Amino acid sequence: MKNNTPKYLEIVNFIKEKIESKELKPGQKIYSENELSKIFKLSRQTVRHSISVLEKEGIVRKVQGSGTYVADNRLTNLENKTRIAVITTYVDSYIFPRTIKGIENYLFEKGFSVQIAFTNNVFAREKIILEDILNRNDVAGIIAEPTKSGLPNLNEDLISEITSRHIPVVFINSYYADSKLPHVSINDKEAGRKATEYLISMGHRKIGAILKLDDGQGHLRFKGYSEAMMNADLDFLDTDIVWIDTEEVKHLEKTKGKILERLGNCTGILCYNDEVSYSLIEILKKEGMKVPEDISIVSIDNSELAVLSDVEFTSIPHPMERLGEKAAENLIQLIKNPSFDANYEFDEDIIIRDSVKRISR
Amino acid sequence: MKNNTPKYLEIVNFIKEKIESKELKPGQKIYSENELSKIFKLSRQTVRHSISVLEKEGIVRKVQGSGTYVADNRLTNLENKTRIAVITTYVDSYIFPRTIKGIENYLFEKGFSVQIAFTNNVFAREKIILEDILNRNDVAGIIAEPTKSGLPNLNEDLISEITSRHIPVVFINSYYADSKLPHVSINDKEAGRKATEYLISMGHRKIGAILKLDDGQGHLRFKGYSEAMMNADLDFLDTDIVWIDTEEVKHLEKTKGKILERLGNCTGILCYNDEVSYSLIEILKKEGMKVPEDISIVSIDNSELAVLSDVEFTSIPHPMERLGEKAAENLIQLIKNPSFDANYEFDEDIIIRDSVKRISR
Repeated sequence: MKNNTPKYLEIVNFIKEKIESKELKPGQKIYSENELSKIFKLSRQTVRHSISVLEKEGIVRKVQGSGTYVADNRLTNLENKTRIAVITTYVDSYIFPRTIKGIENYLFEKGFSVQIAFTNNVFAREKIILEDILNRNDVAGIIAEPTKSGLPNLNEDLISEITSRHIPVVFINSYYADSKLPHVSINDKEAGRKATEYLISMGHRKIGAILKLDDGQGHLRFKGYSEAMMNADLDFLDTDIVWIDTEEVKHLEKTKGKILERLGNCTGILCYNDEVSYSLIEILKKEGMKVPEDISIVSIDNSELAVLSDVEFTSIPHPMERLGEKAAENLIQLIKNPSFDANYEFDEDIIIRDSVKRISR
Repeated sequence: MKNNTPKYLEIVNFIKEKIESKELKPGQKIYSENELSKIFKLSRQTVRHSISVLEKEGIVRKVQGSGTYVADNRLTNLENKTRIAVITTYVDSYIFPRTIKGIENYLFEKGFSVQIAFTNNVFAREKIILEDILNRNDVAGIIAEPTKSGLPNLNEDLISEITSRHIPVVFINSYYADSKLPHVSINDKEAGRKATEYLISMGHRKIGAILKLDDGQGHLRFKGYSEAMMNADLDFLDTDIVWIDTEEVKHLEKTKGKILERLGNCTGILCYNDEVSYSLIEILKKEGMKVPEDISIVSIDNSELAVLSDVEFTSIPHPMERLGEKAAENLIQLIKNPSFDANYEFDEDIIIRDSVKRISR
């Protein structure tokens, strides 16, 4: 029978059989033109013709610069969807409104509509949101800020389900350490390192940190802080760090005792973010301590709080709107091309203001 | 034939015929039980049975406390939809993040998902958003802040199309003057009146205003201002008002010349909102004029700007989050019951701070 079959059809049937027998699964990469050419001892031109026939039949799909994949109907359907789900922890304050604006603006221009939901950084609420997205099954992609990425991911099964359905996801601000899904964020380790290095460059030796324990950013900023301290041959102890959770960030005054006990004799403090810095300056003021005269502070995010504070503080910028745009841009790339690397980290320079005093070494 | 037909079927067939002949149209209220009882000389019980048969066949639908309506398939379909479109002018600043939070929180609790878009208060962008909603045809309702509601509604045809498709809409913050669609907002006329009356009660006689010309709120606040002035037998001239548009609100310093020329010798000024008040205080400071020593200011919205300003200012509150919740609540009511009156206006008391000086009469 083989001899009666046009040569190109040998390849077409071969691929079809492999798919039917599930040896090749939807979304899987098929053999390269080179491999097929060798297996069948056929010219590259004939191989290309076979693939174009398979492509026209909707059995495979070529991805520019990546290869040829077994078509996935669900994936093909996704391409006609023009709704993007956006999940953030908060909507109404701090850096979030501007990040959401960046996302919405970009997606609007590209003809996508935005479905939005907020987790309040609570797993149970994230769960309902993700289940809803899966049940509706009508989004082309998801931009999500992970809930408590510093803790084990309690919604791992839902994230797996999203992945297995080939719904493209881009995480923002943070990511689950054990996940291979892409993220667009600031380079948190570098931010922690740069902020700490700035304190060191200003003569500080006894440097503490207030860091968030339940988000990945806190862990990475801690890593940057530790590296900067070690590189400068400075000691730091467990008791130089105050780890706080989501609730404590919102009500830092409740942690006042621990902060003053542990960090009261530091000359400089790395704060997890501007919300922490802002509250810390208020707390220190009430204790009769002045920033930067008595204690220096470096911060991360460079939000409006940095300039609204009594003492305008030195901070590493969060790109807010630009980060939202970049996440949206990369998600769209990922929808078009599943093999696109959608990871991106912003690495900004520190903005110097009035919260750090130069001290003699 | 009539005599062979069960009595209740006389009514059933009568209603069916009226619907077929389009004398009764989808969504229209049918005769009351009382009227049907009189027309057919049948007991109320028989009439009720007829209606319950029509209801089971999906031909009419009873609305609790309102009456019986000709069923509208499109309307019935809507009830299975659980996505709400939210359209605001801005997302990233001022009162909007908290209003959106209120909407999202309420709808999340009720099992609805939120599709969000921002017009930047630009008609062309609102047009694309509304067209998109109509094309997708998958939202159960719309919460929309009108674009430039003080100007003729350039997207009237799209609003009409939404209305004719029986998609429930609740406007927030403002509404189109010529539209019968419901709105949830502050009572803008009262806000303008109360703020002006406060200035009058503090002894001010020469009172000017900076008002927004292209939003309905500006027109209504002007009405409240005018009423307060007339009630107090105070003169006010066209030149006591500076009308500004959306662009000028964002860059008030560009209108500095006109403001100083027109309002420079007023002792008190009603500002359209906190954004205007905030910028005005900055402008006056640069001119060497102090608030409230040289000039008193009353504001509307009581946003965070009111306390972030150098001079904390007196302002009529905007309920922000509560307004969002109320709009969402009323939209859901409206989806369940098309005859629900979803209008609601908040009427809050003025918050007194440091921007008004008492002057001798």
